[in-house]
Amino acid sequence: MIYSVLMQPQDCTITERTTLRRLPERGRHDRASVHGVLDEALIGHLAFVHDGTPFALPTIHARVGEELYVHGALAGRMLRSAATQTVCFTATIVDGLVVARSAFHHSMNYRSVVVIGVPRLVDDPDEKAGALDAIVDHVLAGRPQEVRGHHEVEVRTTRVLALGIEEASVKVRTGGPVDDEDDLSGDAWAGVVPVRLAFGEPEPVDELPAHRREPPASVRARAGR
Amino acid sequence: MIYSVLMQPQDCTITERTTLRRLPERGRHDRASVHGVLDEALIGHLAFVHDGTPFALPTIHARVGEELYVHGALAGRMLRSAATQTVCFTATIVDGLVVARSAFHHSMNYRSVVVIGVPRLVDDPDEKAGALDAIVDHVLAGRPQEVRGHHEVEVRTTRVLALGIEEASVKVRTGGPVDDEDDLSGDAWAGVVPVRLAFGEPEPVDELPAHRREPPASVRARAGR
Repeated sequence: MIYSVLMQPQDCTITERTTLRRLPERGRHDRASVHGVLDEALIGHLAFVHDGTPFALPTIHARVGEELYVHGALAGRMLRSAATQTVCFTATIVDGLVVARSAFHHSMNYRSVVVIGVPRLVDDPDEKAGALDAIVDHVLAGRPQEVRGHHEVEVRTTRVLALGIEEASVKVRTGGPVDDEDDLSGDAWAGVVPVRLAFGEPEPVDELPAHRREPPASVRARAGR
Repeated sequence: MIYSVLMQPQDCTITERTTLRRLPERGRHDRASVHGVLDEALIGHLAFVHDGTPFALPTIHARVGEELYVHGALAGRMLRSAATQTVCFTATIVDGLVVARSAFHHSMNYRSVVVIGVPRLVDDPDEKAGALDAIVDHVLAGRPQEVRGHHEVEVRTTRVLALGIEEASVKVRTGGPVDDEDDLSGDAWAGVVPVRLAFGEPEPVDELPAHRREPPASVRARAGR
């Protein structure tokens, strides 16, 4: 039941499921927007059905080209269920609190991406190892090159799913409050409080000797900003 | 199909669905932990099934006692679907990047709460207005008292769901990396990069006259930290 409303080479497929019903003017389907939010969001939530109950569980992800990788332990409920069904991966970045002149018009500025599809179970050990590196790299760019390679048992005991970025949409809100005309002359304050994820100063583990406490490039690039 | 494994007066019900399979030592079910994460998390994601597809969509929430309120426009797909089915509300706070000596042991420090149940559609206008105030108050404590009351049409055109906080669990990771013994003597850095949501300096809308640009108490309490 796929309704392709609009499809351009650079666009994701817009289906009944990724058509934005509420405030469609906030919607985007172009791949650059989808990729941008996926790449910036530190984590996402994977929605799947297990024994008839929908779950949304937090997970780290990484985009490689037109696929999204998620991983988990073999014993985990999430990836065992998700490997055989349609899932929804959602990542949301909050950019600001929108403070309006009435309670009703308070809002948030945000960017949220939704990717829907049936994941592919990644079997090939090399692709799995690459996906695991991509997930570490998503959080700390360059970190996989700073540490030893994967042991075979680490790759074997990790489940990796790949979700094609095909049916996807991005919803974005920016700007200040949209207040009622009648409220504009009142006394209430209105504006935006910017919100962002802040990364603090790196805290080395106690056991690191003095000459090895300086964080590597991958950590320095994220930390303290 | 409810399996109460353990239930104390202060605990949420632990069922098959809220039993933590992976790393159960990270799990908590006491109400104080559940409430703490719900109250601190700025937003959550609501998982529901629509036409056979699971969705997770971001939403603001507010806890009032043992219930969680979420709201949306009457036309929205999320709350229309969610009102008649089991849903999962998940809120996740990322506290740190856990940097290990191998790619495999990289992790995140986080607190994540899951609440499962069939929501109640809130019909009573007074309860709805109170829920909407609670949602604004969740984001900016005291803000509802700084603005005018709700217009009747605002309450009428908003859908509010209440989800009982009964079947719930919290999963928490804290501390540094847990590395393989063999990697401890290597050269790799290890530690934690703290992560938090940072609220910047308030930006009043351009139209506010000079004497009204100073942010109110609710905004000052959040901003710049």
